Amino acid sequence: MAETSRPLDALNRARNKRVIVELKNDKQYIGKLNAFDIHINVVLDESEERVNGEVKRKLGTIFIRGDTITIISPE
Amino acid sequence: MAETSRPLDALNRARNKRVIVELKNDKQYIGKLNAFDIHINVVLDESEERVNGEVKRKLGTIFIRGDTITIISPE
Amino acid sequence: MAETSRPLDALNRARNKRVIVELKNDKQYIGKLNAFDIHINVVLDESEERVNGEVKRKLGTIFIRGDTITIISPE
Amino acid sequence: MAETSRPLDALNRARNKRVIVELKNDKQYIGKLNAFDIHINVVLDESEERVNGEVKRKLGTIFIRGDTITIISPE
Amino acid sequence: MAETSRPLDALNRARNKRVIVELKNDKQYIGKLNAFDIHINVVLDESEERVNGEVKRKLGTIFIRGDTITIISPE
Amino acid sequence: MAETSRPLDALNRARNKRVIVELKNDKQYIGKLNAFDIHINVVLDESEERVNGEVKRKLGTIFIRGDTITIISPE
Amino acid sequence: MAETSRPLDALNRARNKRVIVELKNDKQYIGKLNAFDIHINVVLDESEERVNGEVKRKLGTIFIRGDTITIISPE
Repeated sequence: MAETSRPLDALNRARNKRVIVELKNDKQYIGKLNAFDIHINVVLDESEERVNGEVKRKLGTIFIRGDTITIISPE
Repeated sequence: MAETSRPLDALNRARNKRVIVELKNDKQYIGKLNAFDIHINVVLDESEERVNGEVKRKLGTIFIRGDTITIISPE
Repeated sequence: MAETSRPLDALNRARNKRVIVELKNDKQYIGKLNAFDIHINVVLDESEERVNGEVKRKLGTIFIRGDTITIISPE
Repeated sequence: MAETSRPLDALNRARNKRVIVELKNDKQYIGKLNAFDIHINVVLDESEERVNGEVKRKLGTIFIRGDTITIISPE
Repeated sequence: MAETSRPLDALNRARNKRVIVELKNDKQYIGKLNAFDIHINVVLDESEERVNGEVKRKLGTIFIRGDTITIISPE
Repeated sequence: MAETSRPLDALNRARNKRVIVELKNDKQYIGKLNAFDIHINVVLDESEERVNGEVKRKLGTIFIRGDTITIISPE
Repeated sequence: MAETSRPLDALNRARNKRVIVELKNDKQYIGKLNAFDIHINVVLDESEERVNGEVKRKLGTIFIRGDTITIISPE
């Protein structure tokens, strides 16, 4: 690990992999990380919405506004 | 998919297509994506408001302030 | 519609027309759109306040701070 | 009305007149508009606080932080 | 009163005088206004905390972060 | 006291002294003020967390994000 | 301790050590501090989520958006 590792590097390594994105409203979106920017706006492909661990909706490609996100982790 | 794909590219590809915009207050607006900007301010045409999946109002053209939005997805 | 249509263009087209402005606190203000800026601060003329669809107050000219607004639509 | 009318013009016209300032916490402050800035920080003179329409306190000169304000209207 | 009076002028005139600072969480801090800046960060000397009008604590010098403040008024 | 006293001067005078930092979520952190910046991010040494005046945890060095802070005062 | 010690210095000293990150929604994430930036966006390795002190999930590498964080402390 480089000494100057930055948070966005971790997102970069997760590109094209499946991630869990959790929002302030407690919803989770799981999908393949397609894109992100410095505001942590995120685009997921082949995504689905989960509430309390249960799949609620299949959503395809989804844009998530960064300021609603709490954490992003690999599935 | 380009390696440097950015979140706004996904919104750009959705222009003139029907999208679902969800707000922090849990309302949904469905309509044709007419315009957006870097704040994720959005304009929908031929839109309607849904609450818990039910159509509440037909609204025509609607401006949505970006900071109230959680996700945007194709219908 | 121009390909590079921007959200504020839609507000510009609504100038001098009656619009509904909805706030995060669920209040609605209906009036003639007099002015707006990039923060979406808005001024309405001949306005009234509605709560749950009912007219609560006649207000004349009103300044609405942009960061409290969720949507703006034609009446 | 000029075509390029801006929201702060409306506040400028209200200087030295009595206005109602409403906050996100539902309190109202009524007083003579002494000063405002681009953040919509506001100073009222000869002001009073009202809650649910009832006068709670006489306050003299009062500084109101802009980001707590929802609307400003003439009394 | 000068035509170009600005909100911070009012705070400037209150320096070294006792003021009431009210927060979004409904607490009040009363003390002598020692310092403020453009973010409305405030320092009070010889201050006390009041909740519902009752003195809860004597606090001496206190730093208050601007974005928690709703209003500032002379005692 | 200099006429141009600024809020951060008060924090500077509190360096290496014990302070109480209160958060929007009503938690209190008490410790020796090690560092702060213009965002009011704060580092305390030899700190402890109190809820309703009761010590909940001993924490050693702690970083507190500025935008969660309401007030900082000497212990 | 240098006189000009800054808050991010404390985070820098915690790199590669286990820390507790607490969020506004009361969740805790414990893991090895891999990276952070000026927004206090944080990446933890070998992390786990705790709610009320109980381990809820093992999460591996996790990105935490800075504006949801209240405090960061060594485990």
